[in-house]
Formats: sequence, structure tokens, C-alpha cells
Amino acid sequence: MATASSPSWQDVAARKQKEVYDAIPSAWLVRRHLLNGHNFTDLPMKCPHIMSNEELFITEQRAVDILAQIHSRAWTSYQVTLAFCKRAALAHQATNCLALIMFDSALERAKELDAYMAKHNRPVGPLHGLPISVKEHIYLENTPSTSGLISWADAPSPGDALICKVFREAGAVFHVKTTNPQTLMALETHSNLFGRTLNPFNINLTSGGSSGGESALVAMRGSPLGIGTDIGGSIRGPSGFCGGWGLKASVARIPHSGLSGLHSGMENIIGCVGPMANSLADLQLFCKVALAAEPWDFEPSLIDIPWRDVKTEDLPERLTIGVLWEDNTVTPHPPIQRALKETVAKLRAAGHRIVNWDPQHHAALLKWINAAYFLDGAAEYKNTLLQGSDPPVPMIEWLIDTESKPLRHTVEETWKSNSERDRLRTAFSVQWRESGIDALLCPVNPACASAHDESRYWGYTAVFNATDLPGVVFPVTKVLETDTWDESTGDVKGERDELYRRYWNEGGWEKYKDAPVNLQLVGKRLREEKLLAVAEVVEGVIRAGNVTDRTEKTEEYVKETEMVQSRL
Amino acid sequence: MATASSPSWQDVAARKQKEVYDAIPSAWLVRRHLLNGHNFTDLPMKCPHIMSNEELFITEQRAVDILAQIHSRAWTSYQVTLAFCKRAALAHQATNCLALIMFDSALERAKELDAYMAKHNRPVGPLHGLPISVKEHIYLENTPSTSGLISWADAPSPGDALICKVFREAGAVFHVKTTNPQTLMALETHSNLFGRTLNPFNINLTSGGSSGGESALVAMRGSPLGIGTDIGGSIRGPSGFCGGWGLKASVARIPHSGLSGLHSGMENIIGCVGPMANSLADLQLFCKVALAAEPWDFEPSLIDIPWRDVKTEDLPERLTIGVLWEDNTVTPHPPIQRALKETVAKLRAAGHRIVNWDPQHHAALLKWINAAYFLDGAAEYKNTLLQGSDPPVPMIEWLIDTESKPLRHTVEETWKSNSERDRLRTAFSVQWRESGIDALLCPVNPACASAHDESRYWGYTAVFNATDLPGVVFPVTKVLETDTWDESTGDVKGERDELYRRYWNEGGWEKYKDAPVNLQLVGKRLREEKLLAVAEVVEGVIRAGNVTDRTEKTEEYVKETEMVQSRL
Repeated sequence: MATASSPSWQDVAARKQKEVYDAIPSAWLVRRHLLNGHNFTDLPMKCPHIMSNEELFITEQRAVDILAQIHSRAWTSYQVTLAFCKRAALAHQATNCLALIMFDSALERAKELDAYMAKHNRPVGPLHGLPISVKEHIYLENTPSTSGLISWADAPSPGDALICKVFREAGAVFHVKTTNPQTLMALETHSNLFGRTLNPFNINLTSGGSSGGESALVAMRGSPLGIGTDIGGSIRGPSGFCGGWGLKASVARIPHSGLSGLHSGMENIIGCVGPMANSLADLQLFCKVALAAEPWDFEPSLIDIPWRDVKTEDLPERLTIGVLWEDNTVTPHPPIQRALKETVAKLRAAGHRIVNWDPQHHAALLKWINAAYFLDGAAEYKNTLLQGSDPPVPMIEWLIDTESKPLRHTVEETWKSNSERDRLRTAFSVQWRESGIDALLCPVNPACASAHDESRYWGYTAVFNATDLPGVVFPVTKVLETDTWDESTGDVKGERDELYRRYWNEGGWEKYKDAPVNLQLVGKRLREEKLLAVAEVVEGVIRAGNVTDRTEKTEEYVKETEMVQSRL
Repeated sequence: MATASSPSWQDVAARKQKEVYDAIPSAWLVRRHLLNGHNFTDLPMKCPHIMSNEELFITEQRAVDILAQIHSRAWTSYQVTLAFCKRAALAHQATNCLALIMFDSALERAKELDAYMAKHNRPVGPLHGLPISVKEHIYLENTPSTSGLISWADAPSPGDALICKVFREAGAVFHVKTTNPQTLMALETHSNLFGRTLNPFNINLTSGGSSGGESALVAMRGSPLGIGTDIGGSIRGPSGFCGGWGLKASVARIPHSGLSGLHSGMENIIGCVGPMANSLADLQLFCKVALAAEPWDFEPSLIDIPWRDVKTEDLPERLTIGVLWEDNTVTPHPPIQRALKETVAKLRAAGHRIVNWDPQHHAALLKWINAAYFLDGAAEYKNTLLQGSDPPVPMIEWLIDTESKPLRHTVEETWKSNSERDRLRTAFSVQWRESGIDALLCPVNPACASAHDESRYWGYTAVFNATDLPGVVFPVTKVLETDTWDESTGDVKGERDELYRRYWNEGGWEKYKDAPVNLQLVGKRLREEKLLAVAEVVEGVIRAGNVTDRTEKTEEYVKETEMVQSRL
């Protein structure tokens, strides 16, 4: 609890937010008139005084391609890092996505790496010179890790999280930390400490949560690769809301030690660290580098399985894809229904087999996980907020007062809960085996991106935390004027379904204008390699059709970047 | 609590024990005078009216060799099963190792399998026709699973445990279930329900626990392969006490679902199902067959890693073996000190590198695991005993009244405990990595086999449950008249060490006469294949020297079995 002499939460928040803004060089501040409107994905192109076309071009490449250019000495790490620092600064001004700016140390490190390359003519590691962004609650040496809590506003990282240590040794350059919500436990990124993070495609919408700083930043191309975390959809939701690629692997596949957060040591349900990026190849890069370091020796709960590459040619020519059209609790909004239908039609046309998935166990799995999130009756959440005189933001208030009806468990009750989880996982797994599917295609969320404070359902992602199955989300289409409920939509299924239908009906497609529409593919536990290979096939099938460019580019821009490309 | 009209625990126990004896055909009952003495490993040879030399020979082969004979149709499953039923009946009369006899159904099943083989000229699976024994608390269709509790005396198995299902489908023939202690949580096999199981090498000693029925039976060659469980040493302790081979794999490697027992659903520390046998090859057989069935689809917490055979030729020619001479809490008895020294000398002579292991984290790991066993303050143990009016046997009384000083934890306290475990595991893992060892050679227990009610320390096995490392135990030597404390034994380290020294000094080698002396090899987590390959090298090095035969055989017996062998 704040004492009379200690600063109010408003003071703490104002200081933290000012620190971020003060770290942006004044030359990179955007003229105010450019911050009108709703879609800021083209902001960097409107700021030629800040970013050159070359820098625009660099920041729109995949991490794997950037690394190839750096490793071949075509680009310097400094040049790349500077470009991403500028674009991250623009992203923050548009969406409030940064929790910490480290431009100076990043540029310094980039110079060191360039000097190493010049001297030794080889990279220090597979990520040599690549800027990487880090979700705020992940420990990074010499940075605070607040979990969006006022009372932890200056809590230092005790060192690098294992994933950061591995990436740092592989040559990564950390340039920013990104916002996450108060307590982390929300599908929107809003805290008293950092304020609200906006969706760059439409700032009336949320960028998602809890890795919503990452998703906004990556969508704005302010980072080629971000490190997020996911215990109920916190990578997949935000990546989905912002049109990116995000992977939640199985628990204990990717280094996970070194996070700040409440409920430390709780194991009944465990979260995952994972990649957020703009391409499939960059997710694979993240996993390969993470596992090549044999991280299990330093985090013994990790499973000692190296990355076992699966190529698309290793897959059966005819894939069997399960489709979760809806989960019988909340009907997906019209653009998502369309995305599923179009994707299924293309998969069928490409010769793949489609099997409808019966969500018979989903409701029970969600009921289980909602209880598992708060086995202490949310006591630690409430106490930590109280300690900082940190009033719960609306999403958190809803969560701990209503949604999960948190119930304190005895140890014996947690054991019963574990047994119930295993019973449900087994039933799900047997259903999967019997269905013979290679992967399951599903919505990410009932909404393509929720309006602020309207994220009230994580069923389409959390069910795969409950079952511990890997899930990857990827962009498919965007909201269209023609999107509307059609005859295939069944009756209202209950209160939550009614709420989500109302959310859509309140504004229709215009409310969600420009929002990207992502889908999710889910694979078997610990078979991330196969899942990503299947995703590559599915992406190919989708792209063979009508992929919409994420940012609409002027003719002039296209011409100029072509010139830059030919020069590089 | 027993009501006035319900039977006393004595009545229940008498009925259960009578059921077992009544299932032994009268022709297989042993003359009373043969049950004098202390070492019963040669009892079967003294009963030519029960077992033919051919049957003796069959029952002394490895499971892999028996399977080869059955699969080549040299032996029938019926012939093999009958031989093991007879020898199991003798084992029970000598050691009280059986909890349930299923000779009739086993012989029936063997006939069916023989008929299948005759008709199709191929086995139903890799275990076609092999008798397998099952520890009592493992669910097996149509059998009770009591966990040694009076109140569960007639508790039925709801079906097959996954390991039994997999083995049944692979062609196994289940002929007996074996005793386990009251509540399972003891290193000796003693319960009011089944009485006390004795060590066949010396009935003044315990066969160990909790899989002490299996260890006695396997040592008597009443089963070629047994299924045990281990959460603190319950496979390795008994196999060690009875001169057998036993493997505790890493958690979630071997199917584990379908056990009766207290604390169901508790995950802070998890036990393992594993093999108990008379050879390394049979441990490998068990693991290969268990994993070939892709059991993870039916028990989703299992790790999806197939058995990845490691051959001795895949290992470095010069192995680096760590040696845990003692753990600084309890000094191993003289025969174990000698076994370590002899083995180390032989390993050195064979060109391998020896590194002394500093047990710097062992005491903290044991302190952690002792608390983790009873996070509910032993409430469920106490209540379940009360329900059956089942007074705790001495080992259990000591355990829940003294040893673990069980402390009830809140959920938050269990999370702290998990974090402490991970901290210790990481420290241990980093020490392992830095030491560069291929495996760690250690005692199994301070005693080669404890006298009854003298098993008061599981530190040498439980530490590898706490670290979740695979451990295999194997026979090295036996107690010799010359075994005595020597100058290399340091000062008394504390109360527990003093107790164990007194145990030895009370009778010296004569107290432990004929007891086998086993050692333990420990490997990296989830690297069971490499551990067993290293064990094969170590066994070869030991055998190249002075391996003592487990049973002393008469000249006549040797001649006769050679005749049988040549005939088969």
C-alpha cells in the first residue's frame, strides 16, 4: 500500500512512460498531424525525414534474410539496428508498444558485432547482429521486469532469462522491451503502469495481450523477431490480432526460465516462451537457435529433444486437416468464418482431406483451465495490486471478480484438478488419434481483433494450453465490407456468444475496419517441427490464391524500394 | 473405521493371505524341512518333485532368450509359463512375495498364444508368451489393487494400467501380482494386509521396498521380468537388495497411468514405472516394447520420444565415470565401499577416466524431496489407515511420525517448493555438465540389504528422483567374510550415519551373510538409452574380473542343465 509519502500510481506511471518517450531522439519524433486516423501501419512511409527508403526496405525483410545479408557482409548490424530503432520509435508513437528503449546500448553492441565481423570475417553466432525485441516481463540483464505492476515498477532483472542468454550469445542485439498488461493475465495490453497499447491497423482495436506490445511492434516492423510468452493465448492472440506469425510450442520445449510474474513455481498449468514475427521461417529460426544451445542443461525441466527439421516434402502429399468451425461456446465473427471457408475450399482444391472436428471436450477443458489459473483464489494478484495501490484495469477487474470466480484450492484439491486435466487430455488425444488428422485448423479468437475492453473469451487459444498442444497463428485475409453473418451461422449458444454477436453487430465490418484476419493451426504435442511444415503447406495453398498485402504501398514507394534492392 | 460388525484388519489380512496360498496347487507345496535356513535361492533345485531340470533351466534364462525360443517355436508359452508358475509358488513359500496368484488364467492364456502361433506361425507381438509379474498396486484387469492397505483390500482395478495394456497386446502372460508395503511409501515390503516379504538370499534381511515382492520373486527366478514403480528408490532399492537389475527412467518416459495409491494427481514429485529383471537386455526389452506402442497418445503427459538405441560402439572408447563414494550423510557399509573400489579399479584398468563426484547438492535435494512426499501433512495416509483400522507398520509409523515431519502446505507454499526444486536441479545439472561425465557410479543404499525394520535412509536413490535422472542398479559382488571398515572410512557424520554404522557393527558380515552387493549408475535425463549402453560397458569390465555366481550350483545340477541345454 502506498504510504502518504510514497508516490501515487499516477506518479509512478507518468515517470515510467516519460522515461520511454525521453529515450526517443527528438529527430525521430513524428509531427502531430501524422498521428490522426486509425491505421498507422503506413506511418513509417510517411516519415521520409526519419526513415530512408533503404531503412524501410531493410525493416520489411524477414529475420532470416536480414541475417543472410549481415553474414555475407552486405549489411552491417549497425545499419540494420538503426533502421529498426527508428521504426520502433515510430511504432511506439503510434501504438504505445514499448516499455523500455535501449537504442544506445543496442547501437553500441551492433558496432561491436560489426567490428568482430570485420576482424574475424565470421559471425559470433547464428543471430549475429539481429535486433530482437523482448516482452517486458522476461528478464534481461540491466532492465526492469515489472509485469505491468506499479509495485514492481523498478524491479530489476536478476540477469538474463535463459532464452535471452542463448540469443545474446548467438549474437542478438536487444533494442527494446515491449509492453504487457497489468499482471500479464489479460488478452489486451493495458496497465496503469504503461497505459494501453493500440492495434496499428486500427487504433480503436486492441493489439491483444498479454504479448500485445510485441504484436504491435512486429506488425509495425519495429522488430524482425520478438520474444513473447503464452499461457492462455498470450502469443497467439496478439499475433492474430495484428496479422503476424506466432508460435506457442509445447510446454518445456523452448527455454522458459527467467520470467517475472505472479504465481512463480505454479505448475498445474505452465506457460511457454515463443517467437512472434512476420514469417514462418523466422519462427523456425527462433526454435532452431534456442535448441541448438542445449538449453536443457541449464533448465532441467526442458525436454532434451533437438530441433528435428521436418520439410514439406517429408509430409504426406495429401494432408488430413481437421477443422474447428466453432467451439459451441462462442461463434467466430463473419470475417473469421469466411477465412475458414476460403482456406478449407483452397485446401480441398489442392487435394487435401478435410475432417470436421467435434469440440466435444473443449468446454470442460476451458472450465478446468479457468480454475487452474487461480488456484490461490487470486490472492497473490489482489495483494500485489493492493501493495502498489494499483487499481485493477477493467480487464483484470472482470477477470478476478467475475470471469474465473477464483476459488482457493487446498493441495489435495490441486491434485484432483491435475487428475481431471489428465483425464481430459487423454480423451482429447484419443480423439485426435482416431481422427487421423495431421493438424487442426481453428480460429484464434471469436474476433479478428477486439475493441478495447471487449476481449472476453480465450477459448480458442487456451484450450491448446489446457491440452499442451503447439499452435501457430498466421495471417489469412483482412476484414472486408462484405463480411456479414450468413445462413451458416447457427443459433445463439449462450450469454458469451450473445455478447460477442453484439460486439460485431454494434458496428459491423466498419468497427473492425482494416483488422487482419488470422487463423491457427494446431499440431501434436512436441511435434512443433511437423506443425510448422504443415503450416508451410497451408500458407502455400492460401498464397496461391488471393493474399492481400499487409500494407498498401504507393507506386512511388515500390519503385524506390526496387531501386534500393538492386543497389544492395 | 471398522464398525462393530465389520471384520478386523486381522480377519481381512488372514483371508487375503489364505487366498494366495489356496491358489498354489498342493503338488507345489514344499516340505516343511526345506524351509529351514536363511538362503532360499537354491530352494527350487531342492524340489525335483516340483520342478524338472528343464524347468529350472528355462526359468534361469533371460526374457530375451526365452522369447527367442518361443518365437522360434522351440519352446511353448505353456511350457515356459508352467515353469515360472511353479517357481513363483516356491518363491512365495520362501519369501512371501505374492499378493495374487493367477496361474489358471496365465496357463489358459499361454495355451491360446500357443494356438495362435501354431495357426499363424507368427507371434501376436514382441512379448508373445512371456510370463510377466506385476507389482500389486498397478492396475490389471480383474485384479484388486490394494497398495497394501486394509481399507482397499478388495479395491478392483478399473482396467489395465497402460503398461499392462501395452504388454498384454504385445503377448505378455500375467501370472502373479507381487507384494508392496502398506501405503507403498517404504523401503521394505511389510503391511498388515500381506505381512512381510523376505530377502531370498537371507530371510533375516528385507527384500526392499516398495517393489519388494518383485525383487524377491525375480531373484528366485519366479518371473523373468517384473513391473515395478519408483518414487524414491522403490525399484532400485529392492533390485539392489536382491541382486537384480532395475531401471528407474526419467519421469514421463515409460507409461505410468493406471496405478492405485495415495496422493493421486500429485505432481510436485512424480514416480516412474519400470522394469526389474536379471539382465540388462531385459531392461532394454521392457523399454523398447513400452515405447514402440506410441503410448503418449494414450497418456498425454508422456514424452513423445521413441527408444533411440545406443550401442556400446556408439560411446566414446574412453568413458568418463563420476564416482559418488559417499553422500556425506550416511557412509556405505564395507561391502559397498569395496564394490565401489573394485569397480573403479577395473574401470581405470580398462582405460576409463574416473572423476570424484562432490555431493554438494545432495542434502538439500533430499530435504526438498522429503517435504514433497507429504505436502498434505500426510493427512491422506493417516486417514486411509484409520479408515481400515489399519495400524501403521513400524516403517510407516517412523515415516509419518518422525522422518518426514510432514508439514501441510498451502498451494502457494507448493509453488515455492517447486521453485526450490528447479533451483537445485539446475545447480546439479550444471555441475554434471561441467564435470563432463558420461554416467555417475554410486551406492544404491548404505546397506547391501537391510535387516527388517532397519531401512532408514533412501538418500542414494531418492536424490535421483529429486533430480529426475535415470538410474540403473546391477549386481557387482556379494558380502564377504573379509568385509570390514577400513582406514578410508571417515568420521561419523551425524545421527543417521551413526545408526547405520551401528547396524553393521551389531553383526558385521555375518548379519548380512549371502546378501548381494549392487551398485547404481545414473545418467542424464531422458537419456536412458545411453545410460544402459554405459551400464553394458561397466558390466563387461566387472565380469572380465571376478563375478560371483548369484546361486551356488551343485556339480550335478550343472551337468544336468548342460544336458537339458544340449537337448533344447
